[in-house]
Amino acid sequence: MTINDIAERSGVSISAVSFALNGRKGVSAQTRERVLRVADELGWAPSSAARSLMGARTDTIGLVLARESRTLGIESFYMQFIAGIESELSMRDNALLLQVVPDMETELATYKKWRATRRVDGIVMVDPRIDDPRIAMLSEPDALPAVVVGDTSLAGGLPSVWTDDDAATRESLRYLHAIGHRRIARVAGVEEFGHTHIRDLAFRDESATLGIEGTTVRTDYMPESGSLVTRRLLTNRPRPTAIVYDNDVMALAGLGVAAELGIRVPDELSIIAWDDSPLCVAAYPRLSALNHDVVAYGAHVARRLFDRMLGAEGGSFQDSTPALVPRGTTARVPEPT
Amino acid sequence: MTINDIAERSGVSISAVSFALNGRKGVSAQTRERVLRVADELGWAPSSAARSLMGARTDTIGLVLARESRTLGIESFYMQFIAGIESELSMRDNALLLQVVPDMETELATYKKWRATRRVDGIVMVDPRIDDPRIAMLSEPDALPAVVVGDTSLAGGLPSVWTDDDAATRESLRYLHAIGHRRIARVAGVEEFGHTHIRDLAFRDESATLGIEGTTVRTDYMPESGSLVTRRLLTNRPRPTAIVYDNDVMALAGLGVAAELGIRVPDELSIIAWDDSPLCVAAYPRLSALNHDVVAYGAHVARRLFDRMLGAEGGSFQDSTPALVPRGTTARVPEPT
Repeated sequence: MTINDIAERSGVSISAVSFALNGRKGVSAQTRERVLRVADELGWAPSSAARSLMGARTDTIGLVLARESRTLGIESFYMQFIAGIESELSMRDNALLLQVVPDMETELATYKKWRATRRVDGIVMVDPRIDDPRIAMLSEPDALPAVVVGDTSLAGGLPSVWTDDDAATRESLRYLHAIGHRRIARVAGVEEFGHTHIRDLAFRDESATLGIEGTTVRTDYMPESGSLVTRRLLTNRPRPTAIVYDNDVMALAGLGVAAELGIRVPDELSIIAWDDSPLCVAAYPRLSALNHDVVAYGAHVARRLFDRMLGAEGGSFQDSTPALVPRGTTARVPEPT
Repeated sequence: MTINDIAERSGVSISAVSFALNGRKGVSAQTRERVLRVADELGWAPSSAARSLMGARTDTIGLVLARESRTLGIESFYMQFIAGIESELSMRDNALLLQVVPDMETELATYKKWRATRRVDGIVMVDPRIDDPRIAMLSEPDALPAVVVGDTSLAGGLPSVWTDDDAATRESLRYLHAIGHRRIARVAGVEEFGHTHIRDLAFRDESATLGIEGTTVRTDYMPESGSLVTRRLLTNRPRPTAIVYDNDVMALAGLGVAAELGIRVPDELSIIAWDDSPLCVAAYPRLSALNHDVVAYGAHVARRLFDRMLGAEGGSFQDSTPALVPRGTTARVPEPT
């Protein structure tokens, strides 16, 4: 018996059940009454985690970012993601406890401490890796409720909110293929991240399917690496006719290297950035990019965590798929004359 | 009697006194003993705020960002600033409670709630404005300890950590003047922010002193505004020979507009961005920028807040002054032939 059953029987969303059982604003008095009646009929009792929350709720959820301080500001992703989480928290009078730590070991220690002291009611876990020890820790019986941001295959049985990076990777390749590109490079991020791995595999597989000569090069997301590998790619013969970058700032750096080498974008080289950002719109030419609403993504994750904290079962929740927005850096490959 | 006196008498820093009185790691056993002896000799008693902390310390400090969700990711400033704060928190086993709110009213309500519930031990207040109601609230006798990030003139009597935006503005103008520029535009941010106001005044005053024809235009920090006002500036006659932007993404947008109009940077137009960021290095040509170590700035602010929480008096603490880093977008104005 979980709040999923109550939601189904009451004919309202899990979130509405969550609000009603919590006695919070956000549902009508009618809905609240119906939900409480159904919960009563079904003999619903909150899970042990939910019970302990009701005893000593902190009205706080926790997020740990395991990144070197100086690289955190490189991408706008996390600030937008946090803004999205916050939009849901403020509706519920909750706050975000944020810790930036240098490595996964410290992240694990933080979770352990939070569990011991019940400092937060739930956890948002980001950047899942292959065989991630955090998943095991957050799956223990007395662990705090958690939601994993990333592919379901990486989340153990924990609830996960994910975007279809596989489909987005294939879409970008098919688009480039349709406008004549046959030699395409992928400037990828850190291999340990699960989403990088998924993009790698999709890139390799779809390249083979389409008969594209695909190359993947590895970077640390910094603009300097973006310049370095782009210079290498563009001075090789034959050089790629298109490059897809795993972040916006490396794509911008690639655009700069092309200009430096006198290679015209998009006439002689197409460029796609991932994720789309204000930077992509400010660049000249404006960068074609894979667009994903990261603020909405963060909000979605927070909603699932609140459901989980009320006892909702695990599950795999798909967020919108990043969509290619062609702008000024993608064009048809000139016909050989 | 405050911890400032103890620090002076013991011959150690306020931070060392803070660590010692808190029984935390970070000072040697010898220093701790000396500090405790001196505190005892001086008959030191912690302030009421500090006493209440010792009773029920939350080991959490609070930061409210009053910004629209979608604009938060525009600049890398806040993520770097937060990373800097976190570097000091983790040394002290503290965490950051972050709230993103839509407006100042909600920010004030958040401070009120935090005070009533003692949810945080201290507050970092950012973006001070002229006649800021938050300063009055945080100066009330039972307010939580707070540090203001911004010019001392805006901080009431509260401790403030600030950068000399006046000096940096004048430095950039003097540099451009020295390489021949006499018509310079400033693409400024939101007028309500105190630091914008300080830059505005310095720009106007230094332009007058140097005999520069200076123009200031107002924006909302977004790349679209950066493009719009740059297009207007560059299609006016006579057009400016240099433009200084209040953020990096608008400077990038300005670079794009110049390219679109066939105006060569830096031969026909110089561009300076503020603050420096990875984006500035990724751009082509690389953007000349006013560089400030924002991670260190955040860490500095956190240290002053911990001092304050231990009863240190108010004070005005200057952080490093943003320094101009000339790169590929600034050059001498060609001599008229």
